[in-house]
Amino acid sequence: MLDQTALPAEERWLRCECAADVADAIRRLAVRGAPAIGLAAAYGIALEARRGGDVEAAADLLAATRPTAVNLRWALDRALAAADPLAFAEALASAQLEQDRAMARHGAALIPPGSSVLTHCNTGALATGGAGTALGVIVESRPAHVWVDETRPLLQGGRLTAWELERAGVPFAVVPDASAGTLMARGLVDAVVVGADRIAANGDTANKIGTYTVAALAARHAIPFYVAAPASTIDPSTPRGDAIPIEERSPDEVTGAFPARNFAFDVTPAELITAIVYEGGVLRPPYSLEGAEVAHEDLVRP
Amino acid sequence: MLDQTALPAEERWLRCECAADVADAIRRLAVRGAPAIGLAAAYGIALEARRGGDVEAAADLLAATRPTAVNLRWALDRALAAADPLAFAEALASAQLEQDRAMARHGAALIPPGSSVLTHCNTGALATGGAGTALGVIVESRPAHVWVDETRPLLQGGRLTAWELERAGVPFAVVPDASAGTLMARGLVDAVVVGADRIAANGDTANKIGTYTVAALAARHAIPFYVAAPASTIDPSTPRGDAIPIEERSPDEVTGAFPARNFAFDVTPAELITAIVYEGGVLRPPYSLEGAEVAHEDLVRP
Repeated sequence: MLDQTALPAEERWLRCECAADVADAIRRLAVRGAPAIGLAAAYGIALEARRGGDVEAAADLLAATRPTAVNLRWALDRALAAADPLAFAEALASAQLEQDRAMARHGAALIPPGSSVLTHCNTGALATGGAGTALGVIVESRPAHVWVDETRPLLQGGRLTAWELERAGVPFAVVPDASAGTLMARGLVDAVVVGADRIAANGDTANKIGTYTVAALAARHAIPFYVAAPASTIDPSTPRGDAIPIEERSPDEVTGAFPARNFAFDVTPAELITAIVYEGGVLRPPYSLEGAEVAHEDLVRP
Repeated sequence: MLDQTALPAEERWLRCECAADVADAIRRLAVRGAPAIGLAAAYGIALEARRGGDVEAAADLLAATRPTAVNLRWALDRALAAADPLAFAEALASAQLEQDRAMARHGAALIPPGSSVLTHCNTGALATGGAGTALGVIVESRPAHVWVDETRPLLQGGRLTAWELERAGVPFAVVPDASAGTLMARGLVDAVVVGADRIAANGDTANKIGTYTVAALAARHAIPFYVAAPASTIDPSTPRGDAIPIEERSPDEVTGAFPARNFAFDVTPAELITAIVYEGGVLRPPYSLEGAEVAHEDLVRP
């Protein structure tokens, strides 16, 4: 897999031989993005099965790497249940690409061509292994301009989204995360599209820290705020956002010199989300998400 | 003067011999913070007068360094009008310390001891040459904990406010700017106190980019949002915030690799500001700020 920690300076590739290698890559964010983590974990089980390892232990190891994204547990459960874990991983990779393309079409229909769109974190092909979630929607909508939140502390926007948009030939500018308010107040943002790490049954959405801030500002300025994520991101067993576990990472990612806190995600209340775009279509509030889950089960079992 | 670009790694001191040296220091943020810029500019005129230079040209050079903070023009006009520019600069430095102490007392009375207070950017002694504006208020209030927005792109919070709070022995944690929403949603913020670079006659306040975002979130969570600034920050000739010039700095401060935009300030509408604390007391909406200006004129002419 491509080591995303080295981007954009270097395209460095990692070779994973076993589930422990994959777990290490997930933990240090060499691969990140909720769908891509799920896909990597499925391949981790396939690698472990091929070498005759303990796949149950491998699944526990992989599941423990990151707590917030529900796609990880989702993919692991299905990889363990599959007769052939490698065939499942390959099917998931194909399904991801199909899902992402469907999501891009559904989402792009919401955004007039030539819009100025703001996004947070990275949700492109790097984050899914397919064609991207929110960033796929944005590129498909043919925007005039994309505002890319740099997304501190690890700069997934400034490093990864910028790298992907440059390759896609889409005009963009990176901005400090704290700029979103002034951009909206100046009328420079027509829509916001972000991804998700877990969507509770009521629509509350956990995503990269700072997403809630953008959503609150968008609501204040009456700017549509869209979440784009595959149905595997929906967790019907979590009723509301306050039940989603929020990962806290090392303070060293923020500052090496002083005490720091590093919450990796926040929760955007459903009331701030104009619509949720998934591979099956567009969901509007009040959100009722069990049907979406079923649709995804159909899609991933070709 | 202390070169703030080298903090916290190194306490490096600069020697300025003329107004051009001071202008260079202001431009590259070796000295920053609206009151400290005004004070440095006053000393710049004093240096130029001592060497028999052209003080009018020096004032134009200094005024052109940064457009947003009104204290700069305020101090230059008074330094030019003074019979002895050095005596004026010394009087301003003394007045600043007195103002900051008065402001700290007025502001601390608004915040119950043991509160958890969030601040943005740096507003300590480094930003005024005295005892600080917002950070002076915060320290005087004896908080249980301070959340320090790191304040991208130049990390005035993570580098300078953290350095000052550590020296003051006040418990704190640096957080990415995008964390403010989740901290408030979790009930971890009792009050917000920030400084100002220019306050329009109606109370609209220009301050470091990201301040408006924090104010909008504080309003959403019914958390008091205070601005602390000396009366020299008030610009009665600017009726509303949309008339305040907003500096845009080099995109290289954000990312060297990709296109970026770097607005250095934003404007917080008066309606989001619970109170403005200055050396003369506490102002409440609707704001009417001409009286505050007069009080400051009294204070700086001992």
